[in-house]
Amino acid sequence: MDDGIDSALLLHRSMTTLPPLTAIGTIISPFKEKFGTPRQPGLVNTTIGRIRLRDDLNSDAFEGLAEYSHVWILFYFHSNHRDGRTDHSIKTKVHPPRLGGKAIGVFATRSPHRPNPIGLSLVEVVGVDGRELIVRGIDMIDGTPVLDIKPYMPTIESKPDAKEGWSATVPERTVTCTWEPQALADLTIQFGQDQDTAKAAIESILSLDPRPVVYRGTRENPNPYTSQYGFRFESANIVYVMETPGIAKVLYIEPWSDS
Amino acid sequence: MDDGIDSALLLHRSMTTLPPLTAIGTIISPFKEKFGTPRQPGLVNTTIGRIRLRDDLNSDAFEGLAEYSHVWILFYFHSNHRDGRTDHSIKTKVHPPRLGGKAIGVFATRSPHRPNPIGLSLVEVVGVDGRELIVRGIDMIDGTPVLDIKPYMPTIESKPDAKEGWSATVPERTVTCTWEPQALADLTIQFGQDQDTAKAAIESILSLDPRPVVYRGTRENPNPYTSQYGFRFESANIVYVMETPGIAKVLYIEPWSDS
Repeated sequence: MDDGIDSALLLHRSMTTLPPLTAIGTIISPFKEKFGTPRQPGLVNTTIGRIRLRDDLNSDAFEGLAEYSHVWILFYFHSNHRDGRTDHSIKTKVHPPRLGGKAIGVFATRSPHRPNPIGLSLVEVVGVDGRELIVRGIDMIDGTPVLDIKPYMPTIESKPDAKEGWSATVPERTVTCTWEPQALADLTIQFGQDQDTAKAAIESILSLDPRPVVYRGTRENPNPYTSQYGFRFESANIVYVMETPGIAKVLYIEPWSDS
Repeated sequence: MDDGIDSALLLHRSMTTLPPLTAIGTIISPFKEKFGTPRQPGLVNTTIGRIRLRDDLNSDAFEGLAEYSHVWILFYFHSNHRDGRTDHSIKTKVHPPRLGGKAIGVFATRSPHRPNPIGLSLVEVVGVDGRELIVRGIDMIDGTPVLDIKPYMPTIESKPDAKEGWSATVPERTVTCTWEPQALADLTIQFGQDQDTAKAAIESILSLDPRPVVYRGTRENPNPYTSQYGFRFESANIVYVMETPGIAKVLYIEPWSDS
């Protein structure tokens, strides 16, 4: 066969749509919505999640996995409603929260808004419990479809001297967290014996300022929005206010209501 | 809305087939077929490859990427013809070459034969050349569809103390490489000034014994096949023999012919 035709065919095939994928399982997470979910894994490293295997897959797929301390989770960003639908809607530059308005190439970011909305997170293995893999340090929303689980290979994948680009030079702006007496009382009511873990997780989430970029203000007008915000953690609504730039004050915690 | 119905709907949605994905580009690689392609990235770390961006994507998607020393490549194992087609064909246990016949859970391996045939490789960034990203240390076959490129984040993703499971305790059986005078002469003819790089790459490939498990023999019968093997590297056919267990002798190198 002519070499030129072969190559052209190969190029054509590789550019067409790939065979459809089916989730191998689903994330069970205390993060119930995008707002208040950490933007990177391991930052809120006390947070336990589970990956529940799809009903028709045999749980022996997990055999040998508990011997690894860390695994990669490949998942589908299912809450990106507008991404990747049609070719002309694909954005090749994105605006990461940290860059405060500046755009950068999508492949130089870990943004969920990418041509193929696939996420990659390194998590710690806690253990295997039947059809569920228990992990620590998740940053995925409850119900996220999981595409794959792969063992972490430290000899190949640990590169402490790797050079980080723009994300190394633009630190996250961190926020300090304070608690109103009412909020501390509510914490005990809502979380009981898990209150210390919940408090640490909520403080980690708030320290990264979960608000979208447009709510964060600018150098000239650093805190335009002083209204109350709420985010869902486990089955609770965490209500806070940012009256002073850089300080999040938790006002109260109430049971989450979907209505 | 009733909470129970909500959860059931979510579970149902997450288990159905996901929206189709389209490759963002294609791998240009000296490895032309599965046989002779390294099974892990970085092992044949002299090997340069390119990722050519899909025609309808703006190359500003690469902006900022060259500031990172390493990137993740998520790709589709397009040469797995029998995988993932129908649900009942999904294997949850696989036989890694190193385990010599023993099976293990697919998610405890990096096998290409997995429910969703997505690969993940860490490669070194050489640079951006227009619509192409040049990388070092690839383990993908020429024409592999690329799903995503993500920057490597050393502060989060470098875990030198991570515990490796079975793959740490079962070392790769390495093979020593020897060269016949004819093969060294052919190397000069086929690769010219790139002969040293090509020689190192070929030796790295052979050192990992690229033969499928069934050809590798057992403890009782360590070398059942002494016939000649050939694999394609760049546009050459590398012909070798394994007369003695653990020693690959390169016999000659000839131009690759597709006919």
